This record gives sequence, C-alpha cells and structure tokens, in this order.
Amino acid sequence: MGLEKVMRPGSVAVVGASKSETKRGYQSIRTLLEGKYEGWIFPINPKEDYILGLRCHKSISEIEQPVDVALICTPAATVPKILEECGQKGVGGAVILAGGFRETGQSGRKLEEEIVEVARRHNIRLIGPNTSGMLNLVDSLNLVGLRDVPKGEIALLSQSGNMALSLITEAKLKSRKGFSYYVGVGNEADIRFHEYLEYFRSDPSTRAILMYVEGMRDGRSFLQQAYLTSQEKPIILLKSGRSTTGKKSAGSHTGALAGMSEVAKGAFERAGITVIDNSDELFPVAETLSSAPPIRNNQVAILADGGGHATIAADILTDHGIKLPELEEKTKERLRQILPAAASVVNPVDVAGGTDADPSLFADCAKIILQDANVGGLLLVGLFGGYGIRFAESLALKEEDAAHQMGKMVTKRHKPIVIHSLYNSERPHSLELCRYYNLPVYDSLDVACKCIAVLAEYGNYLKSYHAKTNFVFNWGAKAKPEGRAILAKAQAEGRNSLLEHEAKRLFQLHGAPVKPGRLAASEDEAVQAAREIDGPVVMKIVSPDILHKSDAGGVKLSLAGETDIRNAHAQILQNAKAFNSDADIRGVLVEPMIQEEGVEIIIGTKIDEQFGPVIMYGLGGIMVEILKDVAFRVLPISRLTARTMIEETLSAPILKGVRGTPPYDIKVLVNLLLMVSDIVEAYPDIEEMDINPVILHHKGASLADARIILKSGDAG
Amino acid sequence: MGLEKVMRPGSVAVVGASKSETKRGYQSIRTLLEGKYEGWIFPINPKEDYILGLRCHKSISEIEQPVDVALICTPAATVPKILEECGQKGVGGAVILAGGFRETGQSGRKLEEEIVEVARRHNIRLIGPNTSGMLNLVDSLNLVGLRDVPKGEIALLSQSGNMALSLITEAKLKSRKGFSYYVGVGNEADIRFHEYLEYFRSDPSTRAILMYVEGMRDGRSFLQQAYLTSQEKPIILLKSGRSTTGKKSAGSHTGALAGMSEVAKGAFERAGITVIDNSDELFPVAETLSSAPPIRNNQVAILADGGGHATIAADILTDHGIKLPELEEKTKERLRQILPAAASVVNPVDVAGGTDADPSLFADCAKIILQDANVGGLLLVGLFGGYGIRFAESLALKEEDAAHQMGKMVTKRHKPIVIHSLYNSERPHSLELCRYYNLPVYDSLDVACKCIAVLAEYGNYLKSYHAKTNFVFNWGAKAKPEGRAILAKAQAEGRNSLLEHEAKRLFQLHGAPVKPGRLAASEDEAVQAAREIDGPVVMKIVSPDILHKSDAGGVKLSLAGETDIRNAHAQILQNAKAFNSDADIRGVLVEPMIQEEGVEIIIGTKIDEQFGPVIMYGLGGIMVEILKDVAFRVLPISRLTARTMIEETLSAPILKGVRGTPPYDIKVLVNLLLMVSDIVEAYPDIEEMDINPVILHHKGASLADARIILKSGDAG
Repeated sequence: MGLEKVMRPGSVAVVGASKSETKRGYQSIRTLLEGKYEGWIFPINPKEDYILGLRCHKSISEIEQPVDVALICTPAATVPKILEECGQKGVGGAVILAGGFRETGQSGRKLEEEIVEVARRHNIRLIGPNTSGMLNLVDSLNLVGLRDVPKGEIALLSQSGNMALSLITEAKLKSRKGFSYYVGVGNEADIRFHEYLEYFRSDPSTRAILMYVEGMRDGRSFLQQAYLTSQEKPIILLKSGRSTTGKKSAGSHTGALAGMSEVAKGAFERAGITVIDNSDELFPVAETLSSAPPIRNNQVAILADGGGHATIAADILTDHGIKLPELEEKTKERLRQILPAAASVVNPVDVAGGTDADPSLFADCAKIILQDANVGGLLLVGLFGGYGIRFAESLALKEEDAAHQMGKMVTKRHKPIVIHSLYNSERPHSLELCRYYNLPVYDSLDVACKCIAVLAEYGNYLKSYHAKTNFVFNWGAKAKPEGRAILAKAQAEGRNSLLEHEAKRLFQLHGAPVKPGRLAASEDEAVQAAREIDGPVVMKIVSPDILHKSDAGGVKLSLAGETDIRNAHAQILQNAKAFNSDADIRGVLVEPMIQEEGVEIIIGTKIDEQFGPVIMYGLGGIMVEILKDVAFRVLPISRLTARTMIEETLSAPILKGVRGTPPYDIKVLVNLLLMVSDIVEAYPDIEEMDINPVILHHKGASLADARIILKSGDAG
Repeated sequence: MGLEKVMRPGSVAVVGASKSETKRGYQSIRTLLEGKYEGWIFPINPKEDYILGLRCHKSISEIEQPVDVALICTPAATVPKILEECGQKGVGGAVILAGGFRETGQSGRKLEEEIVEVARRHNIRLIGPNTSGMLNLVDSLNLVGLRDVPKGEIALLSQSGNMALSLITEAKLKSRKGFSYYVGVGNEADIRFHEYLEYFRSDPSTRAILMYVEGMRDGRSFLQQAYLTSQEKPIILLKSGRSTTGKKSAGSHTGALAGMSEVAKGAFERAGITVIDNSDELFPVAETLSSAPPIRNNQVAILADGGGHATIAADILTDHGIKLPELEEKTKERLRQILPAAASVVNPVDVAGGTDADPSLFADCAKIILQDANVGGLLLVGLFGGYGIRFAESLALKEEDAAHQMGKMVTKRHKPIVIHSLYNSERPHSLELCRYYNLPVYDSLDVACKCIAVLAEYGNYLKSYHAKTNFVFNWGAKAKPEGRAILAKAQAEGRNSLLEHEAKRLFQLHGAPVKPGRLAASEDEAVQAAREIDGPVVMKIVSPDILHKSDAGGVKLSLAGETDIRNAHAQILQNAKAFNSDADIRGVLVEPMIQEEGVEIIIGTKIDEQFGPVIMYGLGGIMVEILKDVAFRVLPISRLTARTMIEETLSAPILKGVRGTPPYDIKVLVNLLLMVSDIVEAYPDIEEMDINPVILHHKGASLADARIILKSGDAG
C-alpha cells in the first residue's frame, strides 16, 4: 500500500488529546486549527467533552466518520491496544510519538515487533515510533506541534527532532525557502526511508529532499530508490554517527545501527545523493539545489569587488574540484570596456569598485560573463547588497535593479548565480529580490562556495555514466547449473564454505583465468597429478575444517620430482592432523606453481548489514596492510565503477608501470572484479568471498588462493 | 625603531584632505572627529581653508606643531615628494593608501623602492602602500574611514580590506567582542608582519592576534616572532592563495608571492599559530581564544538536549582529534540524581528536556561535569537560550540565572564552556549574558565544535615540547674548519657544488656514518684503492660538470678483481667524455659496495623564498615517486620534530618492521636529520642538499650518494 493516505489524510484523530498547553495532545490540535487544516479533526479523550472547541470522542471506535490517520500521543505501553482499535475502525495510518521501543533495548524491541504485527494485520502504515511527528504543508497538516514552519518545496526527512528544529529555524530566520513535508522517521518500525523517498519522488510539490540520517534499517532499498529519485530531484543528506562516541549516541537515540562509513558515503554518491559533512551547509545546499539550475561543465567564474574574498573563493572552489576557466577573449574585451583600469578582467573578475562603485556594474559584468561559453555558473562575492547601506539610498535602487537583471539572466541562460554578501544578515531589499529570483544568497563565503560547487557536482552526476547505470538493482547475472551443484553439495554436507578447488572451479565457470588443480587422495595420485603439470607444482591441504592452510603447515611450494612430491604429501597430511586431529581431510590439491612475475591483488566481498553485498579491492602486501589502500563499493558494479575503484587507490600508478616496469593487465583485473560482482548476484547464498592473492601479470592473471563462505542456514 | 610612534601617534596630518564626502580625505577626518581622537588633526590641502571645522594647512611643512603620522590619501605618483616633506618636518610614520606600487609590476616596484629609500633616509616607518589603512581603538584613532568598529581585545592584521570589513561586520552583528587595532598591511614595503606581531605581543590591550594573509615578504622573521608571541597570546591565521587561480588573484592583489603551502602550514603550527582553513571560523576562533581558558587535557564533554546535535558534535570533535572521555562514576551518579530516567548520563550527556525542561538543569549538569577530573572543557549544544522564546517568560529568567552560574564556574575551574544554540540569532538575553561571562556562543554547530577544539589544540601546544623549543632561531651549530675549507675550495674554483667525496667528508666531519672513498686519478690508483677495501666496490665519476652520474654512465657497481676495476675505470672515463667532452674530470671515486640490507631514504634541503631553509624527508622508490609520501619542515629542527617527520609519513610502519622484518635503525635516521639541520645552519652558503639515497639498515645507515649545491655569489 502506498503512503498517500498517511501522508495526505482527509481526517485525523488525536489520541491522547489534552487541555494542558504543555502536552503534544493539545499543541497538535492547536497547530492543526491555526494552520487551517481542512480535514476533520477528532480529539480522543474519555474524560473530556470538548478540547479547543472541538467535540471529544471517548475512543476511535466512537467516531462516525471515516478516520485516515491517528496521531497517537499516549505512552508506549498503550500503543498496541490503540492500534487494534484503529484497525477495527479501518484507520489507514498512525503517527506514534512515544519513545520506549527498539531504541531502549530488548523489551522495547518486543513491543515494537508487537505494534508492527498489529499494524500489518490491519493494513495500518506507521510513522515512528520515537518521532517528533509529521508535517504536510501542502495540506496544512501539522502533526508536529511546531508553529510558523515556512512553506516551500523541500521535503525534510530527519532521524532527530532537534536537527529538524535547527533546519526549520534556519529556514525561517535566514531564507525565504521552506518545506513541503517534514517526517520524523523515528525507528522506521514500518515505513522506511526508501518508501518516503519513493513518495516524494512523485510528489509534485517537492523539488528537493533533505535528509538527516544516523543509521538506516534497509540501506539497499534506500539506495535503489535514491538512484531513481536523484535522476529527477536532488537528494541532500547528512549522515552522522561516524565516530565511536557518535555511534554510541546515535545508538541510544533511535536504536539504528550506523554502518561502514566509507561504504555508505561511496554508495550514496553513486546513487546521485549530495552528501554533506558540515551541518551548516545542509539547508543552504538544499535551498540551492531546489531552486537554481545545475552547472553543466564544472566551470565557474568568480565576480568580486576587492581581492580577499575572490582569493579565498578560488581556493575553496579548487579544493571542491571546480575549474575556474579562462574567459574568452571577447568576454575580457567587453569587460574592459565597462570596468575601470584597476579592475581585473581575468577570472576572478574584480570590478574594483570602492566608493565610486555603481552596483549596476555587477549586473552588467554578470551578463557578459554568463554569455561566455566557458562559464557554467557565476559566484558573486563580497559587497553586493551593501551599496545602499554603505553609501546612498539611490544606490539601493540601482542594486535592486541589478538583482532583477541577474534574475532574468539566470532564467534565460539556465546558468546559476550564487551570491556571497557581507550584508546578507542586514537583509537589504536587493538581496531579498535575489532570493525571489532564485539566486541563493549567503553571509558565509564557504557556504556560498559549497553551494555553487554542488550545483556543478549534481550537473556532473546527471551527465555521468553512473546516472545512466542501473544501480543496486540486479543486473541479471545467472548461476551456472554446475555452480549451483557445487554450492548444493557443500550445503548438503553441512559445510559453510567451499573447498579451494570448488571455489576455483566456480570462478572458472564464470570465465576466470584459472585451472583448478587435481585433488589427490594418495601420494600416488599426487605424483600422477604433478606429472600432468608442466613445471613445478604447489600442494595444499584440502579440508573444510582448515581455512588458513599456511598456518596449519598445509602448503608446500615449488615441488618437482617424485620424491619431493611424496614427501610433501606425507608432510602436509601429518601437519594437518597435528593442527586439528578431528579435521575432515579431503586430500591434497596439486596445482601448477605460478612462476610469472606479477603484483599481488586482493579482492573480497561481504554482506553489509545496511547495504547488502559490497566488494573490496586493493593491492596486497604493504599497500593493504600498512596503508589500508583499498576501495569499497556496493554491488553490483559496472565496468566504469570497477575502473574507478582501481583508479582511486593510491597504488593505481603501480599497475600502470613505474620505473621502466611495463604495465600490468588492468583489463583482466576489471573483468575479474565484474566476474565477482556477477557471482555474488547469481548465487545469493554466498556470504563472503576472498581471492587473496590474485597475481596480476603483465598479461593475464593467476588466482593463487580463493575462499567462499556460504550463508548459514537460518540467515540464508 | 619601534612602532610606538606610528601605532599610537599624538598627532595626525591628513594629506589630501577633502570636502567631498566620497573621498577618503574627508571620511578619515570625519571618523577621527566622531571617534573623539584626542591628538591633533591637521588636514592638508592647498586649496581649502577649513575642512569639517578644522583649519587646513597648505603643506606639512607649514604645520607648527610636531606631526607623528601622515595619512597620505593622494595618488601613488605624489608619494615620494610628500614623504620628502614629511622627512624634513620630522614625521615618524606614514600610512600610504594608494595602490599602484609593487602589485602592478615593474614600474610600480621601482616607485615602491623609491618611497622606501626616502623613508629609510628620514627614519619614517611606513604602513602600506596599497592598504585600507589603520585603526587604533585604544586611542580612538581611526584612519580607515569605517564607522562603528566594535572595540575589544583582538588585533587584526589583514592583507585584504574586504576581509577586514567582513570580520569587523561579523564582530559587529554577531558578537560583543571587538578589536584593539586593525592594520591593513598592504604591500609590506617597510613595516612587515613580524614587526606588527612584535608590537602586539607587548601591547597590553591586545589578547589575541587575528591575521588574514595572502603571502609574506619575510616569513622566517614572522615565524620567529610568532613563536615568541604564541607563548603569551594566541595567533589565529587564515592563509589564502593556495590554488593556482587563488595565487593569481593574490598576486594581482598585493603583489605578494604565495609560498609552498605545506611548508607554511607546518611551520605556522609549529610556531603555535592556530591555522584556519574556513573563513567562517576565523572570527569565532579568535573570539574564543581571546576570551576562554585553554583546555589542558584534550578532553571535552558534550551536554545536549536531544540526540541529533550531540551525535554530530561527537563526530566533529573526533575528527578534530579531541577525546570524549568517559565520565567518572561519581559524576554519573550525581547526574542520575538530577536528571530524568530517559536522560543519558554518559558523555554526550543528554538532559532529555523536552517541554517539561528546566533550563537550570543545564547549569546544574555543567557544574557536575566540570568537576570531573577527566573533563577539560564543556560543549553545550542544542536549545539552551530558547526556553524563554519557546515556552514561558519565567523560563527566560531561569535561563539567565543558569548563564550566570555557568560563567562563575568557568572562572572558578579554569575550564571553558562553549555554547551552540539554535536560538543565538534571536539574541535572547541569557545568551548575551553568556557572552558577557566569556562563554562563546554560536548558531553553527561546526563553528562551536571548532572553537572548543582549538582551545584544546592551543592548550596542547602550550604544554608541548615545541612550545619550549627555540624555533627558527639559530641553535648554535658550528662549522668545522675543514668543512669551511671544503666549501672555500669549491668557491675558489668557481664551482657551485661540492664533489661527492667532498660532500661525504663534510657529513663525516659532522658525525655521519660515512667513509668517503678514495679518488683515483688512474687505473693503478683505482686498483690500489679497491685493495684497501674489504669486499666489492662501487666506482663513480667525479666531475663538477656531471651532477647526474648514472645518466652519464658514470657509475659501476659490485666490482671485484683487478681486471674488472681497470675495465670499469676506463669505461667510466670514456662514458663521461662521451656525455660531455668539456667536462672537468677529477677522477673516479672508489667506495665499498653497500651490501647490507636496508630501505632507501631521501633527505633533502632547500631555501624557501618565504621561510628560509627547509628540510624534506621520505622513503625512496614508490613511496616518494608514486605516493609523494614526504614530510617538510622549516629548519632548524629538534629531535622531537625529526621523530614527528618520520612518524607522520605513511611509510612510518615500514621502518618499524612489518611482516616479520626487524625494525630499521630509526635512531640513526633521526641523528642524520639533525646533522643535516646543523650543517645547513653552520654553513649558510649551502643552497640545496640531497642525500639520495640513504640506505637505512637494521643497525646503522649508509649514505650511498650525496649532493650539495652552494649559493651563487650574488645571492650568498
């Protein structure tokens, strides 16, 4: 069932309605009335006849009209019974404010399971519990008890009431943009992040989605919906709880578990989400992305009045990866014609105004600069907005006209102008006009720079391959019958891992350059196997009970000749028994020794509890052990993503060949990463995979060792 | 001469005084009068009799009274003549506003040299040129033409008038702290950054120094003064012009050259300077450091009302390297007694206020937490300050009392409280009281976190070895007579570099573990030299004209036996002649082959144009070539700094021994770095030095190759 009924109800029952001004059961009714909500409002309180002039009902069942949503203001323990009543009445949704559920431990978790069970049974969709409520400004439905929330086109999803209050307060005091919806998602007991996202994607009154997240219960579904949504509307997200202490606090707050932060950040960005680290930037970025056009070429010009701000802005934009292009000759020429001799006509452009300045110069310069083909957007920094304040009233009028001109230009050229102004907090009318024309204005130079930078980043994303690649949805990788049989055999034997030669056979089935060796039960078989191999061999113990073969003395290298092989066979078996006398030993694997030169690569996968299957890639040895130089991605991955993983590691230049070494076979490596992605998708029973090491040669690769762990029965 | 006279003049002449309201020659006189400056004010304009009621003089020489400072508002070309007049009159200082000097190119540079020459001749100290002026709020001397600048205890030094305007505007609108002085340093033609710093160090009305810098003309003297100053007062600095484009803009702004940014940042921090990257943080950090006590144990507790802000704050503080300690058991117990059951008594502490909250709870909790021995400072985040706004007037009074209580606690415990409040921009009286009690308050959570973090960083610095180590001053390293002779010989021969065996002998003289080989002029001599060496030898060409010996085929390794050595000798000479037939060949160096295992290290020095001698350290091979994993420091360095350089590189764990390799001889490496530091100090004629590679063994080290470049005559 969709969320239409719970998000846009035609009638609301307030369970726990109250006459006490400090109670949510009073405040919600007051804000509903003040907001001029047009649906029915039914206060429920067995002890009152009227609250705020509305007739009170003793219980939900007593109401004659249909009830779409119940706002439950009573304590946790009362909720199951109230939901039962809601169910019998046919209520479609409930907003549960009370804490005391999953976030408090075992008994709370049980209570939460109970309310979810009741809700599912009766088809009631739940917001919360442990939430500050919900606010639908489109229909003037205020279930939060907060007044004066500015209406606008940003949907706000928050796991913290205080953060929502911060963002709403900021919008109210510093901006003219506001919100279409606010939902405190609370414990996500029923409705989860991805369902809200899906709803806002198709909501015509929402132009951007702003999220504060501490942890998610279904990260993978969220990524899927985020990927689809960000093609149409920007998503802006701050994820907290990275630090250990942060995690502790997040845990006690909503009971949500914070996930691996690198995986999360990478996945969010791949899904087109604008990830914000600094909470000061959260609302401004949402405001900018919801109102200004994205930048299409990653190139920004700066227009300033004096050097300092321009110099700092150039530093910050460069740090953000934005290019400050050279201006076209004709642009410089046209600027020269209107600017004084002391002005700079290269980017950053400096009007060198001073006391003689004329604010219309800013509009004239902006017009010329936005026509430049190299320029994708304009950042105006410094004193614009203050000419009326500092000098004369007549300049204020000229400034307002300049604001009007710049507004028209943005609409005409589809290139954004973001403004930093020292005078913003004095709110001159010229800057209010800029806001009206969707030119965002900030007092903070850093925030203004960040805002124009995200317009470029979002523009880059919309043009990128990532935006056109199915993300996190399955890509149709298919299991092979023999592969299925290998897994089935292991499961039938009660094993939770594949043996080395089984794992290698699976890779071979999916196209990996590997020839599994022969499993030799006896010395004779080992000698026979070695004879069939050209060159020296490696011998390894094969036992489901011995995962770390070297530690058990179960690996012998560079063997040639019958005596060596017989000795090695005997020694390996003896070591294995000494290591674990109960080990189920299947024999000794005989493989060709890898002789060709190469670099050691590690590829691994695991199931992240929030985001599902993820892949890790890195160079072995010092690079992984000392420098932790690895790349993570949520699976599946595309060819481009595989390449990006390789590129983003510090070790990338090593693969390309350094100091006269020829390059290694990156193409084969990419194929291996894609193969791993396919296998994880095709065999959902795989829990973890480790190919460590892959020896990547100048041509081709050898898989030296491989391990596959299966999901245990109850999890699978 | 000190700056007393120019910074605190008893009389000011305004050259270029004007009756036009838009001119600086008018505005300065107006602000001097409005500010109630008590010294004499002499407008100079040959065409006027009175300006703003003051008698006008035709020229400086016409004034009967003594003149301390001339504010020169006329164009660049007029300045030399005016300065001559000032000199004849005995004026002690001049503030030169005009641009058109060094920042504009060659002819401007000449004009600047001319005014400096005139000033030196007449003992006139210059502020500027190319500056917005100077402001001394202690004596109500306003030479900037800006009104309503808030008075306080922060001295502001800025290379951009707009940045100064930003900071002053921010102070005015958002804080109650202000400035003791503002100096626009302009082109630093005469008075430079370090002299201002020296002045402010001994100025009793200044408690912190706030700097905006694009580039410095004498970075080394600045570091020296900064090191001395930061023991007594905090210095807060933002350096811009990092990006290429940023540099371009900085260059066109003040004509100052931006230096190597890593060197600068590291040196600033070692001198105890708080380096700021985000301009939003600049004023708040200065405000906090000028008013709140530093934190002595790097440990901060968070006090919140609700989860979101606390979770984010914990993340940010952790990112800043601040510890969030466990609270003592007795602290938790005492908190439990006053807080509701839903509250969190672990750090972050959450009062779980909500609608029933009592703001005095914050003061009660703060009192208990600041008594905890683990806690060095407190960050209060969230809603404090808004209780009166959100709920009832009676709560506002309680909140004010809580502010008063917290103020007393900070004074008593010498531990800071920094406050983040959602309601700050509504300026409730309780938060104004907090400011009065030197508890800094910010709307931005990130800024509040940064501010408490810098209190910890400054506290750490004051306790650290660095603060107790002479920094950048010479440490008394002495040259050896033989070392001086080696350099003198090279200089006498017109060489600008030492030969390899000369460089190695210099290192040996200063205690390095190196035995310079024998220089063999003939094959016979080479054979003889090799005989005296135990084991195989290396042979290398020795020529002042061949710096890159390998490229010239001038190096042969692992030689043993007479034939090999004769062949090698002949081959090396032949290759060298083929490489450069005019090369002055001194012979072939015969050295023992380094056979012991080790890692390759690179040590180098150079002269940075802003900061003087700097040292570079890193591991050779991939680490330096691919990963650019090197550390830089301004010289001289202490033992601790040498250790820190090694520690901060990614490769540090490699030296400590990985995967069963025993550790390498870090102690010898540290000694080598110190020796290099000493040599650069003892022989100021050295321009560049390169020991590449040092082979660092498990015990000891070998210097495989070394190069020393001398300053050319005209630079030395």
